[in-house]
Amino acid sequence: MAAGNTFASAELRLIARSAKPAGTVVDARGVRIGGHEVVIIAGPCAVESEAQLLSVARVVKAAGATVLRGGAFKPRSSPYSFRGLEQEGLRLLALARAETGLRVVTEVMDARQLPAVAACADILQVGSRNMQNFTLLEEVGRCRIPVLLKRGMSATLAEYLQAAEYIMAAGNEQVILCERGIRTFEPSTRNTLDLNAVPMLQRQTHLPVIVDPSHGTGHAWMVPRMACASVAAGADGLLIEVHCDPARALSDGANSLTPEEFALMVEQVAAVATAVGRSCLSGPPKP
Amino acid sequence: MAAGNTFASAELRLIARSAKPAGTVVDARGVRIGGHEVVIIAGPCAVESEAQLLSVARVVKAAGATVLRGGAFKPRSSPYSFRGLEQEGLRLLALARAETGLRVVTEVMDARQLPAVAACADILQVGSRNMQNFTLLEEVGRCRIPVLLKRGMSATLAEYLQAAEYIMAAGNEQVILCERGIRTFEPSTRNTLDLNAVPMLQRQTHLPVIVDPSHGTGHAWMVPRMACASVAAGADGLLIEVHCDPARALSDGANSLTPEEFALMVEQVAAVATAVGRSCLSGPPKP
Amino acid sequence: MAAGNTFASAELRLIARSAKPAGTVVDARGVRIGGHEVVIIAGPCAVESEAQLLSVARVVKAAGATVLRGGAFKPRSSPYSFRGLEQEGLRLLALARAETGLRVVTEVMDARQLPAVAACADILQVGSRNMQNFTLLEEVGRCRIPVLLKRGMSATLAEYLQAAEYIMAAGNEQVILCERGIRTFEPSTRNTLDLNAVPMLQRQTHLPVIVDPSHGTGHAWMVPRMACASVAAGADGLLIEVHCDPARALSDGANSLTPEEFALMVEQVAAVATAVGRSCLSGPPKP
Amino acid sequence: MAAGNTFASAELRLIARSAKPAGTVVDARGVRIGGHEVVIIAGPCAVESEAQLLSVARVVKAAGATVLRGGAFKPRSSPYSFRGLEQEGLRLLALARAETGLRVVTEVMDARQLPAVAACADILQVGSRNMQNFTLLEEVGRCRIPVLLKRGMSATLAEYLQAAEYIMAAGNEQVILCERGIRTFEPSTRNTLDLNAVPMLQRQTHLPVIVDPSHGTGHAWMVPRMACASVAAGADGLLIEVHCDPARALSDGANSLTPEEFALMVEQVAAVATAVGRSCLSGPPKP
Repeated sequence: MAAGNTFASAELRLIARSAKPAGTVVDARGVRIGGHEVVIIAGPCAVESEAQLLSVARVVKAAGATVLRGGAFKPRSSPYSFRGLEQEGLRLLALARAETGLRVVTEVMDARQLPAVAACADILQVGSRNMQNFTLLEEVGRCRIPVLLKRGMSATLAEYLQAAEYIMAAGNEQVILCERGIRTFEPSTRNTLDLNAVPMLQRQTHLPVIVDPSHGTGHAWMVPRMACASVAAGADGLLIEVHCDPARALSDGANSLTPEEFALMVEQVAAVATAVGRSCLSGPPKP
Repeated sequence: MAAGNTFASAELRLIARSAKPAGTVVDARGVRIGGHEVVIIAGPCAVESEAQLLSVARVVKAAGATVLRGGAFKPRSSPYSFRGLEQEGLRLLALARAETGLRVVTEVMDARQLPAVAACADILQVGSRNMQNFTLLEEVGRCRIPVLLKRGMSATLAEYLQAAEYIMAAGNEQVILCERGIRTFEPSTRNTLDLNAVPMLQRQTHLPVIVDPSHGTGHAWMVPRMACASVAAGADGLLIEVHCDPARALSDGANSLTPEEFALMVEQVAAVATAVGRSCLSGPPKP
Repeated sequence: MAAGNTFASAELRLIARSAKPAGTVVDARGVRIGGHEVVIIAGPCAVESEAQLLSVARVVKAAGATVLRGGAFKPRSSPYSFRGLEQEGLRLLALARAETGLRVVTEVMDARQLPAVAACADILQVGSRNMQNFTLLEEVGRCRIPVLLKRGMSATLAEYLQAAEYIMAAGNEQVILCERGIRTFEPSTRNTLDLNAVPMLQRQTHLPVIVDPSHGTGHAWMVPRMACASVAAGADGLLIEVHCDPARALSDGANSLTPEEFALMVEQVAAVATAVGRSCLSGPPKP
Repeated sequence: MAAGNTFASAELRLIARSAKPAGTVVDARGVRIGGHEVVIIAGPCAVESEAQLLSVARVVKAAGATVLRGGAFKPRSSPYSFRGLEQEGLRLLALARAETGLRVVTEVMDARQLPAVAACADILQVGSRNMQNFTLLEEVGRCRIPVLLKRGMSATLAEYLQAAEYIMAAGNEQVILCERGIRTFEPSTRNTLDLNAVPMLQRQTHLPVIVDPSHGTGHAWMVPRMACASVAAGADGLLIEVHCDPARALSDGANSLTPEEFALMVEQVAAVATAVGRSCLSGPPKP
C-alpha cells in the first residue's frame, strides 16, 4: 500500500513535513532535540528513592546522557502493582536536576497532575496507554514545555501523527515522537521495536523522532544493539532504562542496563552516529 | 498456550470467576444485564440533535431495545473531527430517557466530565482508547453507577480484566465487559470482532459480557449476522448503532443500521437466543 | 477501509460472487456443501490406528456427521513430532469410508502424494501452511475432486481468495473455503477465530464457507459455543476434532471433543441452524 | 515473556546456539556468510531478460555485491501475475554467474524444480510462503548446497527455527536465516521489518542471519536507512533489490534501488559495519 495514500486520509495540518520542511528542533532548556546531535535520555523506569535516583543520575551523566528519565506517576496494568512515589518522586527528580544539571522528562497521566509535574519537568511525557487520551493531549498542548508523546502500542503511524496534531492544534509545537515497540504475534520480545517508523515518521512530519529500545525489546541484553540500529535508522535520540541494581528494581528490571553496560552502549552508539554523519550530544549544556 | 497460564500472571482478585461463581448481574435502574435475558442497547454513534436522538430512541424502543446509546463526548482520532455536542448532548440524552423510559449509556472521557455525565446516565461508558486510562478507571470506580468498559483495540484479555479490576478495586462492582473488535492485519473490516473473547471472558470472570458488532465490523450489512453469532457465542447483550439516515450521520454512518434493519435484526437475534436457551429482554421495564 | 477497495486490488475473476450470483454447491459424492443444509465434518486430528479411527467414525456418524476428517500426512512445526501414518493412514481412511459411508476429507501436503490421497479421499484438504504453496494449488486444481482450502493463519481475505482462484484457474471449481483462526497478539487462545470472515467471504465469493473452531480456539470447552456462533454467522459447515480419548491423542488432544460432547454440540448447532432459517444435514446419504 | 520459555517449547536440537557456540559460517562456493565480513546480495526481484539481468549483475558487482539474487520461479499472490521466466531464467542466471563471478541465489518453489535450480544456484532460496512447506524443507535438506530460508511473514521465531531444524535434520547444515518483514496492523509499509529478530536469532542459534529491507519495507527510499540499521543490529548480510529501471520492473519496482542508490547505500553500510567492528566483503572472491 502506498504510504501517501495511508496518510492522506488523516488530517495532518500543523505536523506535516510540508508545513515546516527544515524540521523542528525541540528545545528543552537548552538541550536541542532534532538537530545534528543525537540526544541520550536515560534513567530508571521508576523513581524509587533519593539514593537510587541520584546514583543513577550521576552515572548516566558521566556516561554522556543529557536528560534524566524517571517515573513518579506510573501507569501499571494491575491496580496492585507499585504505582510510583507520586509527589515525592517529583521532588526527587527536581533534586537530581538541581544537582546534576540534567534535564528531566517524566510522565503525566492526568490533567490534574499537570501543574505539579510541569513545575519539575523540562519535558512532559505522555505514555503509550494515553496516546489517544484526547483530553490529556489538549491539556499538554496548552503547556509551554516540550512534550514527549510515545506511540501507542498498536497505533498506526497515521493515528500517532493525529494524536501529535492534537497537541500542536492546542498551541504547543514542541513535540517529540518516540517509537517504543508495537504489539505483534511474537512472544519472545516484550514488544516488536518498529524501526521502520523512524524514517517514515521523519518523512511525514517535521518533528524529532527518538526510540525507546528498553520497552521495545524488554531484554537488557538486546538494548545496545537495538540502540545502535535506531541511530543508524536516523533516530534523533534514545530513551534508555538504567538501574544500578536491575535485579532489585521495583519495575522493569529485565529491561534495565547497569551503569557499565550503559557506558559501553554510549560509546557504540557514538561510533554509529559518526558513521551516519551525526554525532552524540555528550552531557547537558549549562542551563 | 494454556489459558490458565496466561491469566495466572495477571493479578485478578475481585474479578475472577472463582470470587463469585454464580456470576454478577448488573442492575441499570432495573434493567438487569448478565441474567437469563439478552439485553439490546442501541442508538446513534453521536447525539446530533433533539430530532435525531428522539426519533432514533423511539424506533429502537419500539423494536425491543432497553438501553439507549449515544455519544455526547466523542473521542476522535483527528482534532478536526466533530467531537460531540458535549453538555447539550447530555441534556438531550436526559430528555430521551425521560420520554421513552430507555436507560442511557454514554461515554465519559475525563474525570472532570464525570459529575455531568453521571447526572444523566444509567451506565457510564469507558471507551476503548481509555481502557488503560488508569486515573479514569479509578474515578468511575468511585461512582455508584454501572460502568461499561470497552476492550482496548489491542488489549489482551488479561490486560482487559486487570483494567476492570481497577474499577472494582476502587469500589464499583457493577462492571459490564464489551468486546468491540481488535486490531489485526485484515483490512476489509474496520476491526476483527473477536467472539472467542465471549466464552473466555465468561470463564475467567463473573462479569456480564456484551458485544459491539457495529464497531467490530465497520459494515452495517455485517451487523445482523455478527449480532446473531455473538448471542450464539453466549453474549449477555449487544451494543448496536442505529441511525434514521445513516448516509447523513456525523460519524460512523457506514456502521449504522436503519430502523427497519434494526427491527429485523432484533427478531433474528431473539430466535438465536431461544435456540441457545435464553431469551431477549424486550423494552425497558418501568423505572 | 472500504471492503470494496480492499478486494478491488486483487484479481478475482472466477471466484467473485458476481461470476455466479446463485452460489456454488460443492458435491462430495452426493454430500452437498453450500446449500440449505449445514454440513458437519468430524473426526480425529490424526489417523492413529484402525481401532481409533473406526471407533471415532462410528460415533461421529451416529451423532450426525456426514464427512470424516483425519490426517494421514500431518504438517508439524517440529521435525521430531509425529507426522502421521502416511500410506497406512490412507488405507484406514478408505476402510472407515467403506464401513460407515461417511465421505472422507484428508490433507495433501505435496503434489507427489496426490495420486494416493485422491484414491481414498472425497475431498482434498490443503492446509493453512500451504495456502500459498502455489504449485500445490495448481496440482489440486487439475484434480476432479473437491478441495477444502484452509485460510492461512495470517492471510488477508484478499490473498485467501486469490489462492482459491489459483485452484479454479487450473480447472477445478469445486472449492470449499474454511476459516480456522488467525494469528493475533492474544495468547489465551491458540488462534483468534475470525467469524467476520464468514459473511465477508460469502459476499465476495460464490463458494461455500465452513469454519474450524477446534483449531480456531485450541480449547475443546470453547468449541460448542463457537460452533453455534459460526452457524449463526452463516457458515455452511463445521470441521470438528473428535477423539474417543483426547488425553491420549497423538496430536491436538486439547482441541478434541469426546463423543458425548460432540453429540451434544450437534444438537445445539441444529437448534441454531433452525433459528437462522437453515437445517443440519444428518448423516451421509447413500453413495 | 521470557525468551527462554518461548523457545523452550520448541524442539531445537541441531540449530541451538549451544550445539555450536562458535557459530556457523556458510560457504557459498568460497563466499563466507556468518563470519566477520558483512555480505551483500543484490539483484532484481525477477529475471526479466538477458539484457536486464546482465546489466544489473555488472552494476551490483561494481558496487560491492558478492552474490546475485534474481527470481526465475516467482510465487505470486494472483494466478494472473507474471510468474517468472522459469527455465530460461535459470539459464540467464547461469550466464550472469559465468560472466561476473558473482555467486547466485534463486528461489525453488517445489521439489520437482530442485535439480534444475541446483544446477545453476550457489544458494537455494526457500521463500516466506514456503517456510512451513515441510516436504520442500526436507528436499533442500538433502541437497549439498546452502539454503537461504526466509522467515514466514507471520512466523514466530520459534516456528522459524523449527523450520530451519527440518533442513538440518535432513542433513544440510548450511542454512542462512533471513528476516524479511512481518505482518502487523501498520499499512504504511508493505511489511514491518523486525530487526529485533537479528539479535534474538543470533542468541538462540548458531546460523548466520541476514536481512531483506526491500521486502521488509516496500519502499526503495527506506532501504538504505534500514540496511544501515540491520548491520548496526548485527546482521551478517543484506538482500537488496536493484533494478536499472525500477519504474518498468515486472515486479516489485517500488522496492528497487537504482544502481546509483545502491552504490551509495553500500558506502553507508560499510561505514556502519566499521562502526560496529565488522567490515563489508567487497565483490566476489575468485571461485
